[in-house]
Amino acid sequence: MNIFSLWLVFFNHIIYNISGDKMENLNYRPPKTKVGERSFNKIIRAGKVLFAKDGFSSTSINDIIAKAKVAAGTFYIYFDNKLALYLYLLGEYRINIRHIASEATKGLDKRLDIERAGLKAFISYANKDPLAYKIIWESLFVDPDIFKEYYSSFAKSYIYHLKEHVNSGELRDDLDLETIAYVLMGISNFVGLQIVFKGNADEVDIDYIVDEVMKILQNGMFK
Amino acid sequence: MNIFSLWLVFFNHIIYNISGDKMENLNYRPPKTKVGERSFNKIIRAGKVLFAKDGFSSTSINDIIAKAKVAAGTFYIYFDNKLALYLYLLGEYRINIRHIASEATKGLDKRLDIERAGLKAFISYANKDPLAYKIIWESLFVDPDIFKEYYSSFAKSYIYHLKEHVNSGELRDDLDLETIAYVLMGISNFVGLQIVFKGNADEVDIDYIVDEVMKILQNGMFK
Repeated sequence: MNIFSLWLVFFNHIIYNISGDKMENLNYRPPKTKVGERSFNKIIRAGKVLFAKDGFSSTSINDIIAKAKVAAGTFYIYFDNKLALYLYLLGEYRINIRHIASEATKGLDKRLDIERAGLKAFISYANKDPLAYKIIWESLFVDPDIFKEYYSSFAKSYIYHLKEHVNSGELRDDLDLETIAYVLMGISNFVGLQIVFKGNADEVDIDYIVDEVMKILQNGMFK
Repeated sequence: MNIFSLWLVFFNHIIYNISGDKMENLNYRPPKTKVGERSFNKIIRAGKVLFAKDGFSSTSINDIIAKAKVAAGTFYIYFDNKLALYLYLLGEYRINIRHIASEATKGLDKRLDIERAGLKAFISYANKDPLAYKIIWESLFVDPDIFKEYYSSFAKSYIYHLKEHVNSGELRDDLDLETIAYVLMGISNFVGLQIVFKGNADEVDIDYIVDEVMKILQNGMFK
C-alpha cells in the first residue's frame, strides 16, 4: 500500500465519522500486481468518464465494465460496489487538489503569497481537468452528506491555516475565519469556472485573473 | 400568458442563441385553465423533487407522471419532453433569484448597499430552498452549455451594473469587472452553502455572515 492509498483510507475514515452507516460501501482493495494495476486504472478511468457524462445514478457497473473492457468479475476484485468506486474518485480529486496546492506553496511563508500560489494551482488544475467539477459536485446527488463533508473538511483545514496567519499579524484579526474559508473556496471555484468557460485559456489568462483576485483580497483580508 | 411566462420565453430564447440545435427541446405550453394550472404545478413539483433526488438522467417521464399523479398524456399537453421540463425549472430559478435580488435592492443607490442586500436575499433564498443548488448544478450533466450560459449570463448582467458604479466613482476603477462578477457569484454561492450546511440557520446567522463578507468587499472593491 503506497502513501496515496493510505491517504484514501484516512479520508474514507473521515467520511465514516460523518456518516457511519455508509462505511460498508466504502471498501476498495488496491491492486497488488502490475497487471492488476492496469485493470484497476481502466476501471477508474471508465468510472470517471461515465460518472462525469451521465451522472452516478445513471451509470451501472455493467456500463463501467463494458467501457473499461475488463471481465465482469474484475470490478469486484477492487471495489465492493459503485459507491466505493465513486468515493475512490472523489478521494483522488481531494488528494490531488490538496497535493497541487501544497506543492505550489512549498517554501512560502507569507499568507498573501500562499493564497496567490494556491489559487493559481487550483484554477490551472480545473482548466486542465474540468471533469473535476462534475465528479465533486455529483456528490450532491450521490449523497448530500458527502458533498457537505467534502467542503466542510476543506473549510476546517483552511481555518486552521488562516488562524496561524492571524496570529502572525498578516491577516486582519476582526474577520470570521469560517466565512473567509467559504469566501476563498467560492472565489477559487468560480474563477475556475470563468477560466474553464473561456475554453482555451493559457497561463497568461490565468495569471491575469489571479492578479485581479489578489488585488481584492489584498485590501480586503490583509493588513 | 403572464409576465412570468414571457420571461421564460425570453430566457429560453437566450439559451437558443447559445445552442441553436436544442431549440426543438425547449417547447412548453403554459396552462390555460385553473384545472390545467393544477396539473401543470403538480408536474413542476414532481419534476423538481425527482431531478433533485435522482438527477435528470435517472428520472423518466413515467417517474414524473407517477409522482405527480396525473394521466400519462397530461405531461405532453405542457411539455414536449423531459428537457423542456428541466429548462422550465432552471428558468424558474433564474427568474426567482433575479426577482428576489431586484426586490431586495429596490430603491437602493449605493453599490455597497446593493451588494449587501443582494447577498442577503440570495443566501436567504438558498437557505429556504436548498434544492436550488441541485437543479442549477444538474445543468452540468444535462448539458454543459446550459450550465455555462446560466452563469455567464449572470456575469454579463453583473458586469453591466458594476460598470455604472465604477463610473459613479464608488468602485475602484482598476479592477477587471468580469473577474469581480465571478468573485461575487462564487462568494454568494459558497457562503450560501455555509448557511445551508448549518442546517438550522436563522436571520441572525445570515446577517452575521453577510456582515463578515461585506467587511472584506468594502475594503477590497470599494473606494
